[in-house]
Amino acid sequence: MTFTAEQMRFWSPEVRELEPYVPGEQPKIQNLLKLNTNENPYPPSPKVVEAVQAVLTEQADALRLYPDPDATALKQAIAKQQQIDVAQVFVGNGSDEVLAHIFKAFFIQKEPILYPDITYSFYPVYSQFFATQTKQIPLNEKFEIDVSDYEQENGGIIITNPNAPTSIALGLDEIEQVLKANPDRVVVIDEAYVDFGAESAVQLVNRYENLVVCQTTSKSRSLAGLRVGFAIAQAHLIAALEAVKNSFNSYPIDRFAIAAAVASFEDQAYFEAQCAKVIASREKLVDDLTALGFEVLPSKANFIFATHPQHEAAQLAQQLREQGVIVRYFNKPRINQFLRITIGTDEQNQRLVETLKTQIL
Amino acid sequence: MTFTAEQMRFWSPEVRELEPYVPGEQPKIQNLLKLNTNENPYPPSPKVVEAVQAVLTEQADALRLYPDPDATALKQAIAKQQQIDVAQVFVGNGSDEVLAHIFKAFFIQKEPILYPDITYSFYPVYSQFFATQTKQIPLNEKFEIDVSDYEQENGGIIITNPNAPTSIALGLDEIEQVLKANPDRVVVIDEAYVDFGAESAVQLVNRYENLVVCQTTSKSRSLAGLRVGFAIAQAHLIAALEAVKNSFNSYPIDRFAIAAAVASFEDQAYFEAQCAKVIASREKLVDDLTALGFEVLPSKANFIFATHPQHEAAQLAQQLREQGVIVRYFNKPRINQFLRITIGTDEQNQRLVETLKTQIL
Repeated sequence: MTFTAEQMRFWSPEVRELEPYVPGEQPKIQNLLKLNTNENPYPPSPKVVEAVQAVLTEQADALRLYPDPDATALKQAIAKQQQIDVAQVFVGNGSDEVLAHIFKAFFIQKEPILYPDITYSFYPVYSQFFATQTKQIPLNEKFEIDVSDYEQENGGIIITNPNAPTSIALGLDEIEQVLKANPDRVVVIDEAYVDFGAESAVQLVNRYENLVVCQTTSKSRSLAGLRVGFAIAQAHLIAALEAVKNSFNSYPIDRFAIAAAVASFEDQAYFEAQCAKVIASREKLVDDLTALGFEVLPSKANFIFATHPQHEAAQLAQQLREQGVIVRYFNKPRINQFLRITIGTDEQNQRLVETLKTQIL
Repeated sequence: MTFTAEQMRFWSPEVRELEPYVPGEQPKIQNLLKLNTNENPYPPSPKVVEAVQAVLTEQADALRLYPDPDATALKQAIAKQQQIDVAQVFVGNGSDEVLAHIFKAFFIQKEPILYPDITYSFYPVYSQFFATQTKQIPLNEKFEIDVSDYEQENGGIIITNPNAPTSIALGLDEIEQVLKANPDRVVVIDEAYVDFGAESAVQLVNRYENLVVCQTTSKSRSLAGLRVGFAIAQAHLIAALEAVKNSFNSYPIDRFAIAAAVASFEDQAYFEAQCAKVIASREKLVDDLTALGFEVLPSKANFIFATHPQHEAAQLAQQLREQGVIVRYFNKPRINQFLRITIGTDEQNQRLVETLKTQIL
């Protein structure tokens, strides 16, 4: 849909220039194998369903009442699971909202914020939305973050760990190097995928007053449909996020989402078991794709980033799609020969491998 | 909690100055009569509970998947109920989020935006958050909006109708006067309380290319616990809101909220019946309070704004609180002798009246 300049006169001038984020598609096609948005192949803990059921049974009348604007019960459940203080937890409507508030709270500075050239593609959108100064730092030739690149003047740093879409993780020693080199700036570690094999920087929070760790329930907790993300940091940084949140939307998390997410954090055994299954499936898929000639970057995430020396990635994505398998393809410099493939169940991954082997390669 | 200047150095400079919105308190006290946040005294439609139950029963596995980022099913249900086109609907995480996106989409202009000096107290917070130019227009001595005041240079206009906390409504003829006087600026009519007796400007949307109407499911649909708000406007204005939303958070409405809100919009009979009950209770409460010597502004909302010539409002609020009845008191110029009282059930209103009569006045 396009509009005339006359119609656009109503828009705020800066909004006319926005280039919004484009999420991975959510097609409504039968029998589709959807390996394009890094969702978990397993459902959430059965305790989640029980918790929502309890809201319906015991508190349906309470739907007429606003939820707790601070979602205290949820903050407490996260604090307990992460072994930190409740004042060190911030919650939001998905980690995308949390990230937006992070940009506003910390990154509107005179100096440019730093993030990799290849990373979560929402960051450049936030940069434009909040008009931050921004400098993108190229990954090295192995698609790795070289942390020594982050020792230059900046207004803040955000690093996805493991990085997306590359899937490669930094070690905590490297993250500490960034934290130590930037004692007067906030360093955000976006850990959307950390539970699939990387080390979490949450254990560094009490030692670094400039560290913000962002996580989500959408991937490792199978709650993408629920919209709950969170940040962990020392209380003086959480306070900035609360000031921003309370200047934007007082009640971002609804009663069902609070109850469901609490139940998820209380079921640690289920959480660990599902993550272990995804990791095992990933290792098998990497082996199978390598056997088909793919080169796969070393993944600590619930997806892999793969290229095939003899096949155009765009064409592979299109051919898979014709066979009912959707993966994510980014038509961008440096990564336009790669496919980002979400880890499914072993059966789903097998369908991908068989489709490639028998129909495409 | 206060922090040192050294700790505050991490914050974006503009965020250090924010004065966030303070929502009405949500105390967790037994047997409290809560008439302070304009919630509906009746539960939502039973169809809402059935719809969430159906998500649990039939789609619990789908919680692992992102919701529809466009919430198309919800937009369709709203469009049908409001008798407009689906491209004229925008949905968000409560009308507070919708209003925030409205400020960003339309109000960042060189000229000041206009709104009344006494109105929804989140507007000045948004003004600061988005750094809009702003001019507050005093209500007249009867606490009414004089629409001729809105015929001056501006970067946009936002009017709550009925206004809050005054409860007084404008007629559509007056709203048309504002729309006609400002053909090049967006005029937002915030109709959070419109279903309790005022006329909705939705019927003007197809005739005015500069009109945005904002509504919520939190009041008249008893879904404050769910966080669903929406805006209605011509498609070229909705597109600006979508550009902003998709630069901030792709998936603001979760699977439960979509299903529940759809069910609410499909149960028109329940909706109308509950609104009628609240209106009838309001009229009775106004009579009872008037008999006790209160002066009550003419209300078209699910709350009233009342003052008592012989009693300090702050003290009345405190005395009611000691008796377990919470109403909203604003310690602000011009309105510091008023109480904003949410309409409860007849039984709840009777408790308020009896408490005033026997314990306080």
